[in-house]
Amino acid sequence: MKLATYKDGSRDGQLVVVSRDLAVAHFATGIATRLQQVLDDWNFLSPQLEDLYATLNDGKAQHGFAFDPRLCMAPLPRAYQWVDGSAFINHVELVRRARNAEVPPSFYEDPLMYQGGSDDLLGPCDDAVFASADWGIDFESELAVVTGDVPMGATPAAALEGVRLLMLVNDWSLRQLVPAELAKGFGFLQSKPATAFGPVAVTPDELGASWRGGRVHLDLESVWNGRRVGLAHAGDEMTFHFGQLIAHVCRTRNMRAGSIVGSGTVSNKDWSRGYSCIAEKRAIETIEAGAPKTAFMQFGDTIRIELKGADGTSVFGAIEQTVRPAA
Amino acid sequence: MKLATYKDGSRDGQLVVVSRDLAVAHFATGIATRLQQVLDDWNFLSPQLEDLYATLNDGKAQHGFAFDPRLCMAPLPRAYQWVDGSAFINHVELVRRARNAEVPPSFYEDPLMYQGGSDDLLGPCDDAVFASADWGIDFESELAVVTGDVPMGATPAAALEGVRLLMLVNDWSLRQLVPAELAKGFGFLQSKPATAFGPVAVTPDELGASWRGGRVHLDLESVWNGRRVGLAHAGDEMTFHFGQLIAHVCRTRNMRAGSIVGSGTVSNKDWSRGYSCIAEKRAIETIEAGAPKTAFMQFGDTIRIELKGADGTSVFGAIEQTVRPAA
Repeated sequence: MKLATYKDGSRDGQLVVVSRDLAVAHFATGIATRLQQVLDDWNFLSPQLEDLYATLNDGKAQHGFAFDPRLCMAPLPRAYQWVDGSAFINHVELVRRARNAEVPPSFYEDPLMYQGGSDDLLGPCDDAVFASADWGIDFESELAVVTGDVPMGATPAAALEGVRLLMLVNDWSLRQLVPAELAKGFGFLQSKPATAFGPVAVTPDELGASWRGGRVHLDLESVWNGRRVGLAHAGDEMTFHFGQLIAHVCRTRNMRAGSIVGSGTVSNKDWSRGYSCIAEKRAIETIEAGAPKTAFMQFGDTIRIELKGADGTSVFGAIEQTVRPAA
Repeated sequence: MKLATYKDGSRDGQLVVVSRDLAVAHFATGIATRLQQVLDDWNFLSPQLEDLYATLNDGKAQHGFAFDPRLCMAPLPRAYQWVDGSAFINHVELVRRARNAEVPPSFYEDPLMYQGGSDDLLGPCDDAVFASADWGIDFESELAVVTGDVPMGATPAAALEGVRLLMLVNDWSLRQLVPAELAKGFGFLQSKPATAFGPVAVTPDELGASWRGGRVHLDLESVWNGRRVGLAHAGDEMTFHFGQLIAHVCRTRNMRAGSIVGSGTVSNKDWSRGYSCIAEKRAIETIEAGAPKTAFMQFGDTIRIELKGADGTSVFGAIEQTVRPAA
């Protein structure tokens, strides 16, 4: 099933069920008004939404209307947790190699993850607003899962059972603010501004056989200013699957329903597949020619991120954002 | 006014108004059921709660009942943001001096803060449960504010206007997990398990003149296994006030209503005031004798944290937790 959150002027928006082909939507009124509510009571509410979804796909829903991603908030406009991994170790290798640093052996067994802010998440077509174009504005094309309750100490296999939904992510990053912040030792804060999410969140069954082993075996496309810059495969080279990422967080604490867990930048060893963030392109340029030549994003730049299923149709709809200066 | 959240089996609990002397409580039913709801619509709902609070303090509320902190969840049992500062730079100085490291000059102008997990916050009397007593279990006695909406780019003065409530915090830390995690460069994750909060959240006016300049000019008491180990002054030595901490987060993003912003361990230059976390005691021991001698907490240990007002009465009630092994 596919779920979205429509803007209605409220903080949490209005839950809608969206048809598989993303053509038609239907308010979930009568079942639930907010997505968090569904995650809080998944076993009771999700079957009712699945029924509505089936009716919608059959063309039999009486009050369906044309689905418009521009009216979407993030599926969870605010969340109780957003924790992002760097699960494609190729990305870490490239960035470190560009600065002549080693990847510690432990990085292949112990996931690199950070706690992100989740009080103000962006919709798929919301502008990305920054006060300065000198901050090294960069997109990061990723995937994420939304979880149910996962108890402290859960194994990766048990944690994987906690996956309720999948989402598309643009993890905006301010690269010029990263070095000073990481040097302080406490992780990202200012260098990771509000994150954006694709129009719909989908249950894993929507991906069919492409969802296996806790990974999404499909290609993620990144289009910067109208030019495709990346078509990265999100499956085999994901060093840690989503169950491992969730279990890493749960080692010392419970994870509660509605937590968002990200994959980190999707990255492949085959450079011909392009890039899912500019930082990686610049790392490759540094490795090849000694210095980066691709500049970060400027005001007015656009980014489009989309993932297509094995049948060629869009799974989540597209993230389509423009970089704008703060008023 | 003083607000608490009673356990009722639900994820967000039930909002209660608590009398100034913490003796009597009254359900806020009819006004609001959850604290987040009040923060989302503060200007409309808080005056109604203030009216109930006045009635309660006058002894005229008909359905009041004895307030029991053991029935409390965290005032916000789950929050959209928990970001913690290390605003008492003396703490940073001590810890670094113990390992012969310098404090970078920038640390006196640029707050050290980290993004914490907020999907599963502990009530004041909830057990603190860990799988291993070898993780370096430590309490951290702190204060925090809960904010309204604060826009991106807010000045410290404007950010301070966004403070809605104050809370008492026990920022549980797993010290033996910290070095490996910080070495990875992405901040804390496993080393900062679920955080606990005092019984009631209070509006700043409850502190009278003790709340000034964005700081709480009162003493914070920490009692470990029945012995007072710290009575640290939370005011003058707070290098960055709460408005500065909020503004630091807001440099590149909006902060939305219900965000919790912490002070970090309350720490004084006068060592005779004791300590608000064991790590600091061990740092002092290392400076004085070359090695730490105080062990971290063990299963069965208790911690009690309380802050008293200028009139000697408890502001927030006490955090009283016991360390327990995971089942």
